[in-house]
Amino acid sequence: MKRTGILMVVSGFSGAGKGTLMKRLLERYDNYALSISMTTREPRPGEEHGKHYFFVDRNEFEGQIADDGLLEYAEYCGNYYGTPRAYVEKCMEEGRDVILEIEIQGALKIKDKFPDTVLVFVTPPDAGELKRRLTGRGTETEDVIRERLLRAVEEARGVENYDYIVVNDELDKCVEDIHGIVTASHCRVQKSIVRIEKISKELSDLSKGEEQ
Amino acid sequence: MKRTGILMVVSGFSGAGKGTLMKRLLERYDNYALSISMTTREPRPGEEHGKHYFFVDRNEFEGQIADDGLLEYAEYCGNYYGTPRAYVEKCMEEGRDVILEIEIQGALKIKDKFPDTVLVFVTPPDAGELKRRLTGRGTETEDVIRERLLRAVEEARGVENYDYIVVNDELDKCVEDIHGIVTASHCRVQKSIVRIEKISKELSDLSKGEEQ
Repeated sequence: MKRTGILMVVSGFSGAGKGTLMKRLLERYDNYALSISMTTREPRPGEEHGKHYFFVDRNEFEGQIADDGLLEYAEYCGNYYGTPRAYVEKCMEEGRDVILEIEIQGALKIKDKFPDTVLVFVTPPDAGELKRRLTGRGTETEDVIRERLLRAVEEARGVENYDYIVVNDELDKCVEDIHGIVTASHCRVQKSIVRIEKISKELSDLSKGEEQ
Repeated sequence: MKRTGILMVVSGFSGAGKGTLMKRLLERYDNYALSISMTTREPRPGEEHGKHYFFVDRNEFEGQIADDGLLEYAEYCGNYYGTPRAYVEKCMEEGRDVILEIEIQGALKIKDKFPDTVLVFVTPPDAGELKRRLTGRGTETEDVIRERLLRAVEEARGVENYDYIVVNDELDKCVEDIHGIVTASHCRVQKSIVRIEKISKELSDLSKGEEQ
């Protein structure tokens, strides 16, 4: 029986350490693939097409929307951002577990369409470090700081609909947690129930003297 | 924040290799404790009180039932078998993940009372080895074999209500699966949602200029 990959969405407070966490996870295990987003914004210096993003024009992006080629998309500041379905599905069919790093609202849209998606939220152990990072060094205006704080609060809205919360206290522990969640997701009942029904049927037939 | 243990029930076809699996799991990781059953049957040679079973008389067992001292119990062939609640709760409070090896009907009773319990069913990859083991060497009567086969079918009845199925194809992979399931169970949303609510509240208060 071929094992297909899991789709896992990782969200979290900005500054919760998601980037480092994903990097370490991909270094340590070879079953993962990171999903690459599609966007209409201009590449920044050093960004490569097909590595950091798929860079396309509005015309092409809207074609993808019309063809149902995106798992989810949103528009921010006049630019589209979305998750190309084909790349994710190809990786999963190859048996790779795909990780998608997007915010909660997009993740919940994906979960609606694909209920097998595993949703994980990464959080620091307490507000301390977030507060220091968000309030800065006292050189920003109160308005700028207030907006940052409110944006951070917004980043956790809807987390109660997630499957898992990983507390990023110690990096290695956190990597093991994410990997454990993916391992467990491969063992969910619906993935193997058919196997057991088949075994039970064979044993039952045999008890009636019906050879396989 | 102190981490309390998980309660995990492991069931499976007899001969699916649960014993070897548990042994290997406990050798490899130090966070596990095996639950010890209480019974009114006589100890067999080599069995120790407090290691293989807690051996008690009917009077004491029925006292435990009356005091709600058992997570579940059943009577087979005139003997009681049950799971002492105090031992399991003590281990969990100490932060150990407790594994209980019982059949599906007892497991579902525990899950009813304690919905956080994680239910895992262990199965061989196909019916082949089970069939060979159950049909024996051709020296048993057809009735004996038929009864064995039907008992095996019975062992999987209700498995669709379980959380996870682990396919015991390769022992080490299977041990990693069980450990992954326990790791993931510690990350379930309800275990950490309070932490995130607290962080969000602190950030929100700070945005209103209310110092902590």
